[in-house]
Amino acid sequence: MEINNGTMKHGVDTNSTITIKGILSLLMQNTDDRDGKRVLSLGMGDPSAYSCFHTTHVAPEAVIDALQSDKFNGYAPTSGLPQTRRAVAEYLSRDLPYKLSSEDVFITCGCTQAIDVAMAMLARPGANILLPRPGFPIYELSAGFRHLEVRYFDLLPEKGWEVDLDAVEALADKNTVAVVVINPGNPCGNVYSYQHLKKIAETANKLRTLVIADEVYGHLAFGSKPFVPMGVFGSIVPVLTLGSLSKRWIVPGWRLGWFVTSDPCGMFRKPKVVERIKKYFDLLGGPATFIQAAVPRIIEQTDELFFQQTINILKNSSDICYEWIKEIPCISCPYKPEGSMAVMVKLNVSFLDDISDDIDFCFKLAKEESVIILPGTAVGLKDWLRITFAADEYSLEEALGRVKSFCERHAKQLEVY
Amino acid sequence: MEINNGTMKHGVDTNSTITIKGILSLLMQNTDDRDGKRVLSLGMGDPSAYSCFHTTHVAPEAVIDALQSDKFNGYAPTSGLPQTRRAVAEYLSRDLPYKLSSEDVFITCGCTQAIDVAMAMLARPGANILLPRPGFPIYELSAGFRHLEVRYFDLLPEKGWEVDLDAVEALADKNTVAVVVINPGNPCGNVYSYQHLKKIAETANKLRTLVIADEVYGHLAFGSKPFVPMGVFGSIVPVLTLGSLSKRWIVPGWRLGWFVTSDPCGMFRKPKVVERIKKYFDLLGGPATFIQAAVPRIIEQTDELFFQQTINILKNSSDICYEWIKEIPCISCPYKPEGSMAVMVKLNVSFLDDISDDIDFCFKLAKEESVIILPGTAVGLKDWLRITFAADEYSLEEALGRVKSFCERHAKQLEVY
Repeated sequence: MEINNGTMKHGVDTNSTITIKGILSLLMQNTDDRDGKRVLSLGMGDPSAYSCFHTTHVAPEAVIDALQSDKFNGYAPTSGLPQTRRAVAEYLSRDLPYKLSSEDVFITCGCTQAIDVAMAMLARPGANILLPRPGFPIYELSAGFRHLEVRYFDLLPEKGWEVDLDAVEALADKNTVAVVVINPGNPCGNVYSYQHLKKIAETANKLRTLVIADEVYGHLAFGSKPFVPMGVFGSIVPVLTLGSLSKRWIVPGWRLGWFVTSDPCGMFRKPKVVERIKKYFDLLGGPATFIQAAVPRIIEQTDELFFQQTINILKNSSDICYEWIKEIPCISCPYKPEGSMAVMVKLNVSFLDDISDDIDFCFKLAKEESVIILPGTAVGLKDWLRITFAADEYSLEEALGRVKSFCERHAKQLEVY
Repeated sequence: MEINNGTMKHGVDTNSTITIKGILSLLMQNTDDRDGKRVLSLGMGDPSAYSCFHTTHVAPEAVIDALQSDKFNGYAPTSGLPQTRRAVAEYLSRDLPYKLSSEDVFITCGCTQAIDVAMAMLARPGANILLPRPGFPIYELSAGFRHLEVRYFDLLPEKGWEVDLDAVEALADKNTVAVVVINPGNPCGNVYSYQHLKKIAETANKLRTLVIADEVYGHLAFGSKPFVPMGVFGSIVPVLTLGSLSKRWIVPGWRLGWFVTSDPCGMFRKPKVVERIKKYFDLLGGPATFIQAAVPRIIEQTDELFFQQTINILKNSSDICYEWIKEIPCISCPYKPEGSMAVMVKLNVSFLDDISDDIDFCFKLAKEESVIILPGTAVGLKDWLRITFAADEYSLEEALGRVKSFCERHAKQLEVY
């Protein structure tokens, strides 16, 4: 039985919701420090771990000024400081055909909390939500705590990880509260076209549901397609836009995110809905007031050059990663990454001698090579791997070189490369 | 009908859960700035609004150093940085007969999020929780979102706001998951004795339930009774201790709190319980990593003198407040405050000519005198008022002077003072 086979291998309980941080921590414990190899992680979407990714000087300066002003040690309104909400509304409105107002923006502890708010808002008895596979496991975990049923639609690797819209239509029913779209894609590294996003909006509208647009990697697009926010289609379907400073400003630890109703038709402005959202925010705590206070200046004064540098580094890293993958026979990349900080690659275990699946691959790789890669099972795809390329060039080359050695060492003897 | 009468008076829907921030914001909107009077708020437990309450220099210095070190821009483990958990464990262990370990401590966005975590952990179909009346409305709000039934036991003003333990016994059944104890008391300003806390622990043990000890005002005791943490009785009953830097360090906006299993018998250390808590934390976001990183130094280097100064100011403020209350015939204070930052006073509307209840009192007071006081209804007691005395002497005198004028102006004409 597949399910029983999967249970508790390498300490990973595949019957339970796997969290990325949980499995990475198990992998880290599985590294062997006796061989003197530096542990290299291509596992987590946290670029700040590598010194080539560094936030702009404006960001800490603005935070320190806000803290030293002594004006922001007290409570902020639970929905966020008015000036922070206004700054985020203006920032997001730059890319929209309409203007968001401050009232549309709620400040959260990173995008993670924005996801949890969206789940809590939408959960009601019998409701279900449609999630992408592969996807981001926090959605399933949060839905579980909210007793919200999850249904998975596939992302299609052969179509640049586009949403399988037929599957969405087949899965949805009158109790479907939302379709989740992550763009730029985590874990796939794809960027959706204007046309595909429009089709998603039209499908959701037809199904009378709404779209949760996870844009935590917003603007981190370095391929041919520009990043288009889902909110552009807010007049076709109400959109909840989730985002944060984390990735674009390279400060994931600052926990400054947003939950935004991108909805020019005003479905979310019904007094009862606004009341429910506001009351839920009363429970949340929210990010530190002095960090919130720094946001208007951070958004206003960040140089375009800083963003461009990050894009250049990511493009270069993703190219390096893509070239290395081509050199390693047992893994293949169906679609060259165009955005975010990660890519999904298919693992062909039939090329390997003593590796049973993706989890086995990653645990043995951690043990033998001190390289951390996330098994695809953690994001919903068995026998795939998620490789994060938000690392410096040297570490990336070194890590992928070790993956290559590992694969060569474990290659089936009769296989001819 | 009482219920219908109460609905939507002054924009306050008393049939719905009232939040303190919600009602204070309505009161603030009701002030009249045409008379040139400065708005004085004795409504919120946020001392940082008054310059006499100022955090120690160590706190922002430690945060700035952590930020400038460039080591803490990335994600922290979702349960908190190990050094932060260790520092909080050591800090709380100073007052306990046993040692907490780092593993007992989970770092939250302020005490508010710690409350919500506790509710989420304990909620299951059919479960109920026992809350104090008067109390802190976030508990009810959070329980509502978790479908956790709330049952109220009274705090007894004539016994120094002690818990009505007979009521607790009468309310509890096999589905009772916890009894909530807030000490030092918000909204009452009481501090419980060692003996009373022990009795609560014994009662909870007898009822086979646990205690949630909300100690956000921990150590802020300035009367005859010292602050005793509920965790002292952790071997009688498992205790979830909730707290934060907010009040003692006067930085409520920093959102640095903790959820702690004070449980030397290890009931919370069962692998399934630990797993559930950890997974829930994966959803939360948590406070900024660089603020967490500053906590060990803040705890270690804060001078005892700083704490003593805060206590002295609070004692002085509460005395001023208590004396003024005696001067105002329509309000009375059943118990002199000994801790926290607020006191409950009984409003005798029969002394007043055109005031129907506490909500009416507070809205007219805001309109006519630009003084904000929380109506008792917001904390569960109709025709009481919660007065926060965390204000500077001058503002407190000015505000209470205005309350006195207001009451004199609205006094029944035939009443003889």
